[in-house]
Amino acid sequence: MAQSIKDQVAVIGVGCIKFGDNVDQGYEDMAVEAAFAAFNDAKIGPEEIDAAWLGTYSPAQGHGKAAVSLGDALRLYNKPISRVENFCATGTDAFRHAVMAVAAGLYDMALVLGVEKYKDRPGRGLAREGVHPYHNDGSTAPGLFALAATRYMHTYGLSRESLAKVSVKNHYNGSLNPKAHLQKKVSTEEVLTAPIVAYPFGLYDCCPTTDGAAAVVVCRSDLAKEYRDDYMLVKGVGLSVTSGRPFMDPTYDYLGFQATQHASAQAYAMAGITDPLAEIDVAEVHDCFTWTEITNYEDLGFAPKGQGAGLIEEGRTALDGDMPVNPSGGLKSFGHPIGASGVRMVYEIVTQLRGQAGLRQVADPRLGLVHNVGGPGAVSCVAVLGQP
Amino acid sequence: MAQSIKDQVAVIGVGCIKFGDNVDQGYEDMAVEAAFAAFNDAKIGPEEIDAAWLGTYSPAQGHGKAAVSLGDALRLYNKPISRVENFCATGTDAFRHAVMAVAAGLYDMALVLGVEKYKDRPGRGLAREGVHPYHNDGSTAPGLFALAATRYMHTYGLSRESLAKVSVKNHYNGSLNPKAHLQKKVSTEEVLTAPIVAYPFGLYDCCPTTDGAAAVVVCRSDLAKEYRDDYMLVKGVGLSVTSGRPFMDPTYDYLGFQATQHASAQAYAMAGITDPLAEIDVAEVHDCFTWTEITNYEDLGFAPKGQGAGLIEEGRTALDGDMPVNPSGGLKSFGHPIGASGVRMVYEIVTQLRGQAGLRQVADPRLGLVHNVGGPGAVSCVAVLGQP
Repeated sequence: MAQSIKDQVAVIGVGCIKFGDNVDQGYEDMAVEAAFAAFNDAKIGPEEIDAAWLGTYSPAQGHGKAAVSLGDALRLYNKPISRVENFCATGTDAFRHAVMAVAAGLYDMALVLGVEKYKDRPGRGLAREGVHPYHNDGSTAPGLFALAATRYMHTYGLSRESLAKVSVKNHYNGSLNPKAHLQKKVSTEEVLTAPIVAYPFGLYDCCPTTDGAAAVVVCRSDLAKEYRDDYMLVKGVGLSVTSGRPFMDPTYDYLGFQATQHASAQAYAMAGITDPLAEIDVAEVHDCFTWTEITNYEDLGFAPKGQGAGLIEEGRTALDGDMPVNPSGGLKSFGHPIGASGVRMVYEIVTQLRGQAGLRQVADPRLGLVHNVGGPGAVSCVAVLGQP
Repeated sequence: MAQSIKDQVAVIGVGCIKFGDNVDQGYEDMAVEAAFAAFNDAKIGPEEIDAAWLGTYSPAQGHGKAAVSLGDALRLYNKPISRVENFCATGTDAFRHAVMAVAAGLYDMALVLGVEKYKDRPGRGLAREGVHPYHNDGSTAPGLFALAATRYMHTYGLSRESLAKVSVKNHYNGSLNPKAHLQKKVSTEEVLTAPIVAYPFGLYDCCPTTDGAAAVVVCRSDLAKEYRDDYMLVKGVGLSVTSGRPFMDPTYDYLGFQATQHASAQAYAMAGITDPLAEIDVAEVHDCFTWTEITNYEDLGFAPKGQGAGLIEEGRTALDGDMPVNPSGGLKSFGHPIGASGVRMVYEIVTQLRGQAGLRQVADPRLGLVHNVGGPGAVSCVAVLGQP
């Protein structure tokens, strides 16, 4: 039987650039800024890195190759560097790969770098045409997630008002975060009256198109104390693929994402978590659309299926709730440069666990969760991080 | 200090389809045939696979996503599946990732699947424009490798006749291999008088454009005996990035590839190899062009720099030599569907180590090597496999 790698790997450095419409930064500029922020945070130089992983989903011409966009950008030569790609779970899965390699004992210290540049390119829908499995049918991410959201709303009686509360919460959190793309509060009325993108999603139900980069340095946990006292441990990781095209699967119920259920089950088993709502103190989850956050609550085991909206209605996932979700502002406000997002979430959870999150700090977290779902619905990657 | 994972992972199944112009097979058809060949070889069903890696370098529209092209194609659901991409080392690096994850103890058994479909698409040069770092300058793989080959020929006095011997050897080997793309012998005169593609490379100095897929099943070495007696062990793996653009590096000597030197040094250190020429019994190396095989001899430590041609001149790398190289026919004759190649090389080395290579079987190999270099020159991945 497979073994747990709980507590074998530590996070000793995190870095994240300001996300947004970074007109003054190219892909490599963002990569370098994020990586050196993580190096500085870990108080190491790049020469201490034994291996590296690049998470980039849909690179523009000339970018996204591990050797070019990580090796050359950081002058990190004669090292093992790989690129991992896994839909919207690209960044988290790059982190998972670094964790596995360090846990295997192959490397003492590794860099995970997530980067994506979208704002100087054709619309994401166009950019995706070359790589996305729902090809040539005109489908887009908002349109596909909307199919599930409307089915869910019909089944469980969820309203657009409830969806709007996710947007209001995450925009509020983002308004407190100097690195978020959209640092503005929105009101329920603004969300409900915004132009419709794909019913039930209005403009403020959808995450923006964003440039960004984030980086994480991991090392063997028995070495972590040499670098800092407040290192954090990787408690669990999980990855699961449901189907590359769940929306074309006749057995799909359109009410949530099995990939998230399975990926989180793997991570919880490794971390020894049996009651995620009680045990996890803070979570960064994949709120590409407002409905996605509500189904995530359920698929991650925070609430029974169909009852996720209760958590947002009752304020339990707000900054001052008992289960704060997306204190960073989430994809909704922080932005979603795909390969960067998962790594940025690790940055946020580690920052929260260290108690360094400033105005958006949640109360005394000991255990935090990172979650992406992509495809849409094809794949999910989950990581659990915690205090030593 | 990082630890060795020598002997922790075993190969218990290998599969490879007929490479070529596979007009009757789509990308997923090839994936399924290769994967089930490996499952059948391991005498397992797909349900025994705990995790999987897909190696595809430049997927066409709608293909190459882990969840779609591996998960859906094999109906392998609710499992962790990732895609790795690393230039021409994509397949070998996918294998390396599966080995690391099993060595970490996270999974008992993993599938590595390399697939690429090129023959029904625009020329590889065109296909590469969107992703290659040497963008917009008209450069191609033959043109770039030719720059190094001509410099090498000038420096060390290598002739086109010596290059041709690599082509004659590999075409001969491929003529014995029912799965090779080009199963035909060529004479030295045919190689030398073929149309020039990029001097010094004529048509028969260049590997063809090919469709193909290959798969490997790895498991914890302590479980291998449950599946077969003639399992093989992973002795070492290595990956190194020199620069994403070595041909633009003013310090590059154009005489070989540092990435290969570093990747093989990592793998040899792990495997405990100090004299590769004496210790390794059979090798599959990256002969994208005839000159590449000669510089590989040197960069892999089989010969001092500038003296690699001696090995081909003296017949030492022929099937009946003391260091057979590319008994499969190599990229030159077997073909080079990029993501598939590294996995196909693992298939060949395992087949040779088992003594099941038929007409192309080399004498009693105990230790074999797999090598890719890509980018060109940006990255190299090496694996060493051996008898228990």
